[in-house]
Parts: sequence; C-alpha cells; structure tokens
Amino acid sequence: MLAALITLDGEIIARKKQPTHRASSDKEFLSGIAKLVHELLDDRTDFECLAMGIAFPGPINAEEGIILNTPNIGITDVPVAKMLEKEFHFPVFLSNDVNAGILGEYKKGAGVGSRNVVGIFPGTGVGGGLILNGHLYRGSFGGAGELGHMIIMPQGPMCGCGKRGCLEALASRTALSKELVHLAAVGDAPTVHEFAGTDYKMVKSKVIKKAMQNNETRVIDSVKQNAYYLGIGMANAANIFNPDCIILGGGLVEKLGDNYVKWAAKSMREHGMKDHVENLAVKAASLGDDAVPLGAGLIALERLGNGK
Amino acid sequence: MLAALITLDGEIIARKKQPTHRASSDKEFLSGIAKLVHELLDDRTDFECLAMGIAFPGPINAEEGIILNTPNIGITDVPVAKMLEKEFHFPVFLSNDVNAGILGEYKKGAGVGSRNVVGIFPGTGVGGGLILNGHLYRGSFGGAGELGHMIIMPQGPMCGCGKRGCLEALASRTALSKELVHLAAVGDAPTVHEFAGTDYKMVKSKVIKKAMQNNETRVIDSVKQNAYYLGIGMANAANIFNPDCIILGGGLVEKLGDNYVKWAAKSMREHGMKDHVENLAVKAASLGDDAVPLGAGLIALERLGNGK
Repeated sequence: MLAALITLDGEIIARKKQPTHRASSDKEFLSGIAKLVHELLDDRTDFECLAMGIAFPGPINAEEGIILNTPNIGITDVPVAKMLEKEFHFPVFLSNDVNAGILGEYKKGAGVGSRNVVGIFPGTGVGGGLILNGHLYRGSFGGAGELGHMIIMPQGPMCGCGKRGCLEALASRTALSKELVHLAAVGDAPTVHEFAGTDYKMVKSKVIKKAMQNNETRVIDSVKQNAYYLGIGMANAANIFNPDCIILGGGLVEKLGDNYVKWAAKSMREHGMKDHVENLAVKAASLGDDAVPLGAGLIALERLGNGK
Repeated sequence: MLAALITLDGEIIARKKQPTHRASSDKEFLSGIAKLVHELLDDRTDFECLAMGIAFPGPINAEEGIILNTPNIGITDVPVAKMLEKEFHFPVFLSNDVNAGILGEYKKGAGVGSRNVVGIFPGTGVGGGLILNGHLYRGSFGGAGELGHMIIMPQGPMCGCGKRGCLEALASRTALSKELVHLAAVGDAPTVHEFAGTDYKMVKSKVIKKAMQNNETRVIDSVKQNAYYLGIGMANAANIFNPDCIILGGGLVEKLGDNYVKWAAKSMREHGMKDHVENLAVKAASLGDDAVPLGAGLIALERLGNGK
C-alpha cells in the first residue's frame, strides 16, 4: 500500500508505504488504510486535505465507491469510500489502479505532451488504460480499456477470465511464468528452478530478469515470444486508437527494461498499419510507484470539481 | 454516387443518385460530382447551401481535402475540396465514408440515444467508426477506427493490407467470397457458380443471399463462420470501448439481414467479458444509403462551426 500527499498542481510532497496483507475482515482492511493515511496527515499539519483518491487493483463500482469481490485480498463488497469518509470527514473517491496509473503518467510522466495515449500494463494480467482527446476514457459503465481481454488467437491458450486466446493469456507475466516453470522442470531454466522450483506463482519479474542475465537462452526465447504477442496487442491498439504514444508499464516492464520494450515495439511495427505505427512512440512508464497514487489523487480532484 | 440536400437539423430533403464509373482523368471525376450537385441545387432555388460534405471510401487527407491514391476509381492525389470550392463558392469538406456513416447512424439512425457507439461495416474490407462520449473519435492524425486491421489470428489468412490474420481477412465479404468460389468449384455452391462462376469479385452480397435461400448448406456454414469471426471483433471492441451499442452496417449486413446479425451477436456474447456484452445492444444500421451523405453533411456543418 502506498499513500501520498498531492498538491493541487499534482506534485507529490509526501509518501508512506506499507505491505498489504490478506485481511481477516473488512474492518481490519479499512483500519490498515486509515492508519497509513493518518500517519501521513499527522506529519503535515500545514496541509489541508480536500479529498482522498483510492486506486484499487480489482473489480470496483467507481461511482459508488465500492470494492467488489477481491478474493486475494480477502474482502468482498466493501463500501470503502463511504466508510473512510466517516473516518476522515473529506470526500473519498475510488478508481481502478490502471486508470489511475495511466492518468498519472499522462499528466506528469511518460505521456506529457501527448493527447491520445494507450497504456498497457503486463503483470499478473494485462491491464489497459486510455487517454483520448486529453481525458481518461471510461466507456458506458466504466469498463473501457480491457485490452488484456482482446482475443488475438481464437481457441488459443486459456485465460484467467474463462475465455481462450486473450492477449493476457499470451502476453502477461502469468503466461510467461507457466512457460518458465515448464522450462525449469525440463532443466532449461536453472535460475528459475533455484528461486521458484516449478511453482509458477513464485516466478516474479526479478527471477525472470536473473535468468536472462544468466543467459538461459530458452528463457530469453520465451520472453521474446511474450513481447511479440504484446506487440500484436499494441499494433491493434495503434490501428484502433491512432494514439500519439503507447506507454508500457508494470512490474515486467520495470524489471526487464529496455530489451523487453524494444522487442514489443519491433513486433508492433511488424503488425500495425504503416502510417499508424511507423513513427508511433513506445515508452516505458516513468513515474514508477508514484503513477497510481498520483492518478488516484487527480481523479479525486477532478471529481471534486477542482481539477484542472 | 449519392448526393443529398440536408437541413441544419439533419433532415434530408432531396437526393440524386448516379452510378460511379472509373474516371479517365481527375477532371472527368470532378465534373461528374459537380454535375450531380448542380442538378440537385437547380431543383431547389429556395435552398441556400452553406457547405458541402463529401464522403469517400478510400485513403484521404481530411484536413486538406485531398483524395489520395484510389486505383479502383482511377484517381490519385486529387485536391477535391479546393477544386469543388472554385466551382461552387461555398466551403467543401472531405471525410472518410465510414466515419460519415457512423455519425449519420448516431445522429439519426440506429445509434440515437446512445453515447458510445462502435460501428463495424463488413464489405470489401471491414470498416470501423467510433463515437465516443458523443463525438466522432478520429485519433491523432485521423486514422482511428481501423477495427478491420485488428489482428485476431497471428499468421492467419492473408489480408489485402499485407499482414495476416486481420479481422478483415476473416470477416469481410472478400474473405467469404474466396471461400464461396472454392465451394462453387467443388460443386457445393451451385447458385454461386451460376452467378459468379469461380470469380470471387463477382460474388456480390445478393448472390450470397440467393445461395442461402436455396439452402446451400456449405454456403450457410461459411457465412456462419464469417459472422463468428466478426463476433470476435465485436467482443474485442466491447471489452475495449465499453459502448452502449454496436452498429453493423454495409452490404453484407443489409442483404443477409437478421440471421447474420444474430450469428455475429451470439459469437460476441461468447467471446466478450460478461458485464461488457451481456446486455450490449447489437443493431443493424437503419438509414441505408442515407447514412453516409447525412454524416458527410453533419461533419461539414461541424467543421463550418454551425454544428449542434
């Protein structure tokens, strides 16, 4: 959990970080958030807080500020905005972490100077966020941007969503990890085997990075294949949105860095329409962990009517 | 070629139609347009014309009003807007026919009452048009909406664009026609054989309709497969744009009607995310030939600064 104090100009002036644990109750989950925010505010008595924005990596009802079913954190149907408003006496707004992240990057990071930006964030899944004509595009009920569930291979590999052949089933860290534990099992990824055994959930981005540094060639081939599919998703986004830039973010991009972005961009330029991809900028997100809290704050400000 | 007089309220009050022939020169091409427009205006001396909108089914530079390379009509790099402005003494604006069509449907046709609309038009290719937050979304240089070149099958069938596995390579009338002439050749599509032989360019939508009415089962299977792939493209669009409705238009949809739309919608509901497709309206375009000139007129009005 990362909390930040943000000025009206979108500058972060203080941060506090705390690990998230699986909560035994909604109350425990909320008191964890409240404690972190109190600590942050208590340090800055000169700061008048107008609103709180919370970004959450799971299904939400943004309008009503409710976190829906999120099994891996152990909560379900929590009206987090209303509950925190009682504690803090200022308005609380909930948003999706990918939307917050792309808005943060657009306003202060890799997207500065662009007007139409597609954000793609490969990790456990593949998140997507859209800035169109300078605004976050949310769609009819706030469900827009699910680029990870664009089907790019009918009857392809299984996706967590229940379908087959989604971009996420081919270009997430999850997809990559399943290949890498197979390589670990057959003796072609000793570094992966050392840190994760054959448990795909243990294959973190930094383990993948280490295996590549140790020049495990089949691991590198799998990463290239993963980036190749990501590039097809990026090409599709380029053809559909005709953006000024595509921003890649998330743990995989941060850890694997330039090579991964370069491989994905190469595939994009092979698969997209010439005019659409030839000069299209592909950038790595530049704000790191700050993008999401910054974007959450900006969304809160906008909804409060104080946004710029 | 269809010309129409349109009021400021978007009502069509007169129409004239004329077949398009391959022009032997730019001048001949332009004088054909000018003649049709003069005929239309001469009939209505009570009508003061403020602007002309032209929609064109090929690569254009909308900003500068230039038709780029269009081999099947026989013209290349024609500054049609400037040339017609000399003839008519009112401003002329050029737009893409798919954008014009979806805007027409949005304002006066199947999209009335929606705010976010995705238009998909299978024909020779698969065109796409986007109304987002109530406005035509054009992207950074006017290239947005190329849903037909979304790759949904890497290394799949060849597309006219030079890539493989584009939606257009699987769900256009062109893709279907290539299957149907193969069926004609092996004796499984006698109606197709009667009207088109084995020349895929001769397989028009009405020929396909006749073969289906004659219950040629392998033809029907091919149409179903075509609609199945169209549904995957629709599902991807639903996940990405979270629209209020998807409008299907173009010759194939008009001729094959309800069954085709129903098959495509069924596939969409199988392939899209539940919340995004469960209640998503799928509609056939309702304005027929009027949609494109109406939209072209509305785009012209908007660019003139008189749009609503």
